[in-house]
Amino acid sequence: MYSTDAAMKLALFSVLTLLSFHAVVSVATLHFQHPLDPLTKEEFLAVQTIVRNKYPISNNKLAFHYIGLDDPEKDIVLKYETYPTLVTIPRKIFVVAIINSQTHEIVINLKLRSIVSDNVYNGYGFPVLSIDEQEIVNQLPLKYPPFIASVNKRGLNLSEIVCFSFTMGWFGEEKNSRTVRLDCFMKDNTVNIYVRPITGITIVADLDLIKIVEYHDRDIEAVPTAENTEYRVSKQSAPFGPKQHSLTSHQPQGPGFQINGHSVSWANWKFHIGFDVRAGSVISLASIYDLEKHKYRSVLYKGYISELFVPYQDPTEEFYFKTFFDSGEYGFGLSTVSLIPNRDCPPHAQFIDTYIHSADGTPRLLENAICVFEQYGNIMWRHTEIGIPNESIEESRTEVNLIVRTIATVGNYDNVIDWEFKASGSIKPAIALSGIIEIKGTDIKNKDEIKEDLHDNSFEKTSLRTVRISNGSSKRKSYWTTETETAKTESDAKITIGVAPAELAIVNPNIKTAIGNEVGYRLIPAIPAHPLLTEDDYPQIRGAFTNYNVWVTPYNRTEKWAGGLYVDHSRGDDTLAVWTKQDREIMNKDIVMWHVVGIHHVPAQEDFPIMPLLSTSFELRPTNFFERNPVLKTLSPRDVPWPGCSNLNKIA
Amino acid sequence: MYSTDAAMKLALFSVLTLLSFHAVVSVATLHFQHPLDPLTKEEFLAVQTIVRNKYPISNNKLAFHYIGLDDPEKDIVLKYETYPTLVTIPRKIFVVAIINSQTHEIVINLKLRSIVSDNVYNGYGFPVLSIDEQEIVNQLPLKYPPFIASVNKRGLNLSEIVCFSFTMGWFGEEKNSRTVRLDCFMKDNTVNIYVRPITGITIVADLDLIKIVEYHDRDIEAVPTAENTEYRVSKQSAPFGPKQHSLTSHQPQGPGFQINGHSVSWANWKFHIGFDVRAGSVISLASIYDLEKHKYRSVLYKGYISELFVPYQDPTEEFYFKTFFDSGEYGFGLSTVSLIPNRDCPPHAQFIDTYIHSADGTPRLLENAICVFEQYGNIMWRHTEIGIPNESIEESRTEVNLIVRTIATVGNYDNVIDWEFKASGSIKPAIALSGIIEIKGTDIKNKDEIKEDLHDNSFEKTSLRTVRISNGSSKRKSYWTTETETAKTESDAKITIGVAPAELAIVNPNIKTAIGNEVGYRLIPAIPAHPLLTEDDYPQIRGAFTNYNVWVTPYNRTEKWAGGLYVDHSRGDDTLAVWTKQDREIMNKDIVMWHVVGIHHVPAQEDFPIMPLLSTSFELRPTNFFERNPVLKTLSPRDVPWPGCSNLNKIA
Repeated sequence: MYSTDAAMKLALFSVLTLLSFHAVVSVATLHFQHPLDPLTKEEFLAVQTIVRNKYPISNNKLAFHYIGLDDPEKDIVLKYETYPTLVTIPRKIFVVAIINSQTHEIVINLKLRSIVSDNVYNGYGFPVLSIDEQEIVNQLPLKYPPFIASVNKRGLNLSEIVCFSFTMGWFGEEKNSRTVRLDCFMKDNTVNIYVRPITGITIVADLDLIKIVEYHDRDIEAVPTAENTEYRVSKQSAPFGPKQHSLTSHQPQGPGFQINGHSVSWANWKFHIGFDVRAGSVISLASIYDLEKHKYRSVLYKGYISELFVPYQDPTEEFYFKTFFDSGEYGFGLSTVSLIPNRDCPPHAQFIDTYIHSADGTPRLLENAICVFEQYGNIMWRHTEIGIPNESIEESRTEVNLIVRTIATVGNYDNVIDWEFKASGSIKPAIALSGIIEIKGTDIKNKDEIKEDLHDNSFEKTSLRTVRISNGSSKRKSYWTTETETAKTESDAKITIGVAPAELAIVNPNIKTAIGNEVGYRLIPAIPAHPLLTEDDYPQIRGAFTNYNVWVTPYNRTEKWAGGLYVDHSRGDDTLAVWTKQDREIMNKDIVMWHVVGIHHVPAQEDFPIMPLLSTSFELRPTNFFERNPVLKTLSPRDVPWPGCSNLNKIA
Repeated sequence: MYSTDAAMKLALFSVLTLLSFHAVVSVATLHFQHPLDPLTKEEFLAVQTIVRNKYPISNNKLAFHYIGLDDPEKDIVLKYETYPTLVTIPRKIFVVAIINSQTHEIVINLKLRSIVSDNVYNGYGFPVLSIDEQEIVNQLPLKYPPFIASVNKRGLNLSEIVCFSFTMGWFGEEKNSRTVRLDCFMKDNTVNIYVRPITGITIVADLDLIKIVEYHDRDIEAVPTAENTEYRVSKQSAPFGPKQHSLTSHQPQGPGFQINGHSVSWANWKFHIGFDVRAGSVISLASIYDLEKHKYRSVLYKGYISELFVPYQDPTEEFYFKTFFDSGEYGFGLSTVSLIPNRDCPPHAQFIDTYIHSADGTPRLLENAICVFEQYGNIMWRHTEIGIPNESIEESRTEVNLIVRTIATVGNYDNVIDWEFKASGSIKPAIALSGIIEIKGTDIKNKDEIKEDLHDNSFEKTSLRTVRISNGSSKRKSYWTTETETAKTESDAKITIGVAPAELAIVNPNIKTAIGNEVGYRLIPAIPAHPLLTEDDYPQIRGAFTNYNVWVTPYNRTEKWAGGLYVDHSRGDDTLAVWTKQDREIMNKDIVMWHVVGIHHVPAQEDFPIMPLLSTSFELRPTNFFERNPVLKTLSPRDVPWPGCSNLNKIA
């Protein structure tokens, strides 16, 4: 049996996606490359060689915990965008490696094949865990005598046990080492291990020492059975149902998008897709073609998932520490899975591979990391006019949207990350959760931080205020008015959505429409989720970026990760909440908006043994960005008659 | 020039849809008919005849303002559902007619072709406006000398003017007559009349007297030009763009749904679709097949739009009165437009006609009133398991959902109403707005009321509460807990969403799952919208159903319309807010949930001259309704290879 307490699961996230596009050829020479392209196989190998040259593995303990692009300066990137053949941006790589038990931050100039800087980090917190080290320590209990004794005591089969590493956070301890909790599960008769935990045992392992440093067999509880936990079709038996009829799609003109290197061109959009082992997919340099102005206009400099916070609710020994940061601790990119064609993405989708790396720096191919596809979006706009006598007016345009998808599976949860682009100018990031509910840890809260980079903008909050009319000037007793404030400093822009009705927009005060409105984009949020831990609780200190739903900061190239650069065992001293205490100016500056989005999930029986998708999304919608409706002159896609089918199916 | 003040537009709605299905044959005899079927052409004619028999039009003034099904008693309908061949439900029609200046409520037994009851209504408020009477009074200004003088003074062309009727609400006046405001627009050079108002003139017409009873030419303002207002493709010229590639869909096995009469069978769902001239589409008797229990289980007795409230923000003479109730004043069903194939609905959709009626009772065919189609819904559930050594596990199922769509255009706004059904058990009603922004009336708020009928249920609110740990029992300083309260009476169930985190569910306390959870469905709302008028303001009194986002009442067949039965010039004495003052018991009873949903819209230049869709939706999601995931054994639709296409398109 298992318990499923009513619980809340919130996923607040920062959705900034970089679609990684791995080049077709695999020759050693570098061919055309966009400065924001993710690392190629050759580049990973070069980094491995360069670092090993300085720290030969024959007498150095060397592990790569992060290898990624060192972001070029924003102004240079923008110059490159305008003059790609004139501007050369040196390709620099940022490495976080643990070398002889010290955390090194190494910057490498790939062109020169040299190390630009190599600094030891002495602060709190540790780098992203590597998959390799987890695999190693996960094996430790199986050879650990006290654990073997516990297993025997419970009458379990040791060869059917699998263990996983869970980060431990920080709870005020003075000293920290790179420890993880190991939780073990039964894998006999079902691959749905998360629903079959071996509870009552505390195992702490040290990733550096590669040994178990703490062990308590606290309490024996029965392991739930494997019955009815299987979700693989190969292991299921009839009856199946309900039956779903095929709904196949086809694009006789081919897809509407073109991908050149990592640059995507679709409808009126251009953008770059990259990939990072920590962030996962990243969208950069998204701009939209203005039909009236006859030029592309920048919308989004960069968008990616900055952090994903999962604090569990249960304060007991079994679960109190479970306050995961899926991006900073496990690496969203490292957790990205290969997409299953025709299942994770529709039949007409196109796939992109990418490379991630192992702890020794060896590149590893991740096939089908990203898919790109168009999707029928229903009605773009429409109107039927019946009021004009003797005229029958009806107009309706359908739309096809573009989606860029990745899926990151961190342990039990599968996070489906979509970036949707609409010709109307909107960008709609979405996250959907599926996968396995971890039972007993039923109060789960996921919070992701969304980060969008903007340029020379201001953040405006338009409040809607009820005004009472007491002077008899109208038959109405009240009306409501809008008051727009421009945020001057960071403290003006810490927003909790839902408290009072407000419109939030990023505007460019230096560019106005013909009738004087500042061009901008507004945020249309989903129902927000708010923190449920006290602000002084350790997990909440570490995940303090969730204290507000929206933050705005001045652009700072080093402020990338809302939970800090070093999240494992972090103490919350390098988070978005800390940076913004500086209360810097954000008016008419190059600013960044951080949006925290929540998925509210109460586990129910329908989520067992695997949960149907639960999703949330928000919209970045052009607001006085265009002079008028940008898709007024967009025609519906051409009708394609299917042989043998008529286009109008009338029942009556 | 026109002004577009920052404004808020909220649509809160009650989504209950009835899909009307008009029988193929047009003979006088009644063939198989479900008791909830909408009126047939023959039935409308029968009603017309029966009422005219009593009130011959030779010497009576007779106008039909509402002809619709008189809801049968719920328990009899449920009996019919179980024993359709044994239970006969007499077909009764409810009529609201204005006869010789009096409002009559007439109930007709169609089988007996007799009037069951005929009562005069003497309370406040008036029936739904008829299209016919509006068309008549809309012509009045064109022959009214003071208006002609005003037109000449402005240098406008009288033959290019069109006027519309706008309901006036109530602002404390002692006496009320059936008056409307008439606003006039220019129609030369563009059909986009709403952006070309003739402002500064107040015209009040009386619908009963059919004359103008008030006229003021207050102020001359220029009429905005027609430039750049056209949205019809036939009147647009190149360049067009951006280009959208075709994405055609096809169902080689045919659609997955079957419609028999008005009853729909799809995947594991069964439901009935009807149509009402006031509510529009109505969904009834929705039940889902439980694969484990081998039977259909009731989910939704009835769902429809109960009311749609549109209070404008502007308190000035021009706009103060604009506080529309699109359903109760104009009739959502009467406002339903014919769907455009391949535009409003995808190519493989199926269409259903229905009948509405004119003021003289004559039935009028409304072609393509409803469309039904399946839609690719992306991923149903998925998981990739990498933690088990030497095993590669990945499983993903795609889903196809069913959508039932209607579009009601009330003046300038097009409301796209979708009912989405998912095999996972969720129902997702959605509303999207498009059409024309009415300029100068920029602060628009639409609020619709959603009504779902349930049976022998309770309403549970699970609050999520932060708890501080002060006794050192855990390393955590806080955790959060859930507290579930069952609403006992109506006052317990008046919910403002967003104030404090809570889960809202309808449960059946008499039916539990194997492990003891009460079966239920929960409400997953979108970001809510709250009223912005003071509670004592006249429009807010009339639209008081928007004071809360969720209400629960005991089922009462006569409590159908959240704004009251008579909404035009109503005084708010018969609204959902008034009924619930009785504070009736709602625990373990046959209860009804009313959900108020908001669309938050700030008009921007992109909305001109026609606005891209702005949408919102909510989800009714099974919560411990099933023993486990109901689509665990649902296979993805069969892959359909398109000749000449491979199924895996790899860029690299």
